[in-house]
Amino acid sequence: MNDVIVAVDAMGGDHGARTVVAGAILALEGADISKIVLVGRESEIRQALDAANYDKSRIEVVHAEEVIGMNEAPTTALKSKKNSSIVVGLNLVKDGRAAAFVSAGSTGAVLAGGTTIVGRIKGIARPALGVVFPSTKGYTFLVDAGANVDAKPEYLLQFAQMGSVYMESLMGIKNPRVGLINVGAEREKGNMLTKEAYGLLETADLNFIGNVEGREIPLGAVDVAVCDAFVGNIILKYSEGFAKGIMSMLKEELMSSGISKLGALLSKRAYGRLRKRFDYTEVGGAPFVGLNGLVVKAHGSSNELAIKNAIKQCGKFIKADVVGKIKDKIDSNKSERTEDYGI
Amino acid sequence: MNDVIVAVDAMGGDHGARTVVAGAILALEGADISKIVLVGRESEIRQALDAANYDKSRIEVVHAEEVIGMNEAPTTALKSKKNSSIVVGLNLVKDGRAAAFVSAGSTGAVLAGGTTIVGRIKGIARPALGVVFPSTKGYTFLVDAGANVDAKPEYLLQFAQMGSVYMESLMGIKNPRVGLINVGAEREKGNMLTKEAYGLLETADLNFIGNVEGREIPLGAVDVAVCDAFVGNIILKYSEGFAKGIMSMLKEELMSSGISKLGALLSKRAYGRLRKRFDYTEVGGAPFVGLNGLVVKAHGSSNELAIKNAIKQCGKFIKADVVGKIKDKIDSNKSERTEDYGI
Repeated sequence: MNDVIVAVDAMGGDHGARTVVAGAILALEGADISKIVLVGRESEIRQALDAANYDKSRIEVVHAEEVIGMNEAPTTALKSKKNSSIVVGLNLVKDGRAAAFVSAGSTGAVLAGGTTIVGRIKGIARPALGVVFPSTKGYTFLVDAGANVDAKPEYLLQFAQMGSVYMESLMGIKNPRVGLINVGAEREKGNMLTKEAYGLLETADLNFIGNVEGREIPLGAVDVAVCDAFVGNIILKYSEGFAKGIMSMLKEELMSSGISKLGALLSKRAYGRLRKRFDYTEVGGAPFVGLNGLVVKAHGSSNELAIKNAIKQCGKFIKADVVGKIKDKIDSNKSERTEDYGI
Repeated sequence: MNDVIVAVDAMGGDHGARTVVAGAILALEGADISKIVLVGRESEIRQALDAANYDKSRIEVVHAEEVIGMNEAPTTALKSKKNSSIVVGLNLVKDGRAAAFVSAGSTGAVLAGGTTIVGRIKGIARPALGVVFPSTKGYTFLVDAGANVDAKPEYLLQFAQMGSVYMESLMGIKNPRVGLINVGAEREKGNMLTKEAYGLLETADLNFIGNVEGREIPLGAVDVAVCDAFVGNIILKYSEGFAKGIMSMLKEELMSSGISKLGALLSKRAYGRLRKRFDYTEVGGAPFVGLNGLVVKAHGSSNELAIKNAIKQCGKFIKADVVGKIKDKIDSNKSERTEDYGI
């Protein structure tokens, strides 16, 4: 088997190099990952490494002096900081020195850098952010969750194709059910974008089950839910706020009487398990689908566990050759279709 | 004081005339509503009325033989069923025989009928559906939640203006905080629609607090949240599914051990109170804002309590003269602005 080498942005995320390094060391457990390349300020990385026990042959450090901040304008930052951890890390993927790059840094910079440095898969109009999130029945892959706020029907078709490949690789789901997020179940429902996208999706080589309404998504109606990044971002962040809101209201109500307080104490473990089901750290990272290499965005507030899972997830994607499979899917699709993807 | 007369679609909703009639009778409690006009098949309505105790001088029945089904194409149904409860009821508002019309029937038919029969307020480009929904801090008025899936920036400005009037009238909030639902807090964030709408909103006579991200909405960051109906519908239905999903997951976890089961039993009332906070029946109805009269859509699955609250809510709107206030707002706005609303 080939070596599975993952480059990790040691400078990304809210908790600093120490957390990323600790997560990387945890990710060496098991055989998913052969080697991790930590990218960032060497002194900071070494300091974090020195405190830890790990197999020295499986961690490499590549120095990158600069850091792109969360609030910097992505394109400008990428141009002016050629020696930033994001640019250096993405170049490792481009040059084939790593099979994947994981960063908890600026989403915009990772996406823009991924597109310009690693490049798009030929035939893919727009890379997109895919996010795995929990439903009552398991997990749903939501794509696009953060890249293209103004999308075209052709983009949505490609998001569906790429989402299917990812969901199959990540969760082992054969022939994943694909749904188009829409305001009604009937095919004539929707806005201009979804009405046109419906036609493309139903004739494509996909397990397209039709439109899926907002209320069906948390209930696990589909494996892959397709939308533009405006809608995807709203769903993603709304879920965060809603879960937080409902838990705080529940707490308020539980604390409002002695008996329910006691009840809450007895049910404490059940609440813990519920929280865990909503915990982003369990899944780990969101892949930028459509790039000519694997680039995974970890949540900005990732702890060690989330970093570990984001890295380990790359092992699955690499073994399943998701990038290669997307290329195949897009190639075979292109030969069936004559439309221009606007590239 | 003038009489407050509300027309009610006795044939609308999933539970039939008996539920609507029972809700209407409940709405006569107190002094909000002077009189209710029940519109629909007289025999069915009379049958439901005969079983009840009520002040006969305050309920009138107007016969309408036809019923527009939930799945009929709105425009065709409105044309072919001139004697349907929706068409007859809307005509009562148009003719000044009722100050409001409440229906739990087809949203599309009530909207399309409201626009063609009752008509738009002069200067309003597009009527919209406004929905009040619970946040951790109270309530947020979401507009547009169901009418215009492809919106223009000018529409969003008017939704904000109308939403402010409604929220002030309904909740007594002076100078309601208006937010533009968007993918980021910064003004340059968003899609083409929201970027342009931002400029209109910040120069309008509104308490515009800027963009509001998905995660802030359930946490009560704004009183009025503005978006197109595609996004609004997704948020609304997603909330429904998410609340259902999280409650079912919680139940699953609570039932998975004896101790947490006991805890759940002790906390039963707290869960009941939490459910109540999410209960659409507590608010009642969603007004179609921008019509030249008051038209309120009740949830299709409304029970008696929801019908009652939807009707009583009309009393508030009528007393506050929301339609007149919107006219004033649009007039004063028009004199400041020269743009054409495309009408």
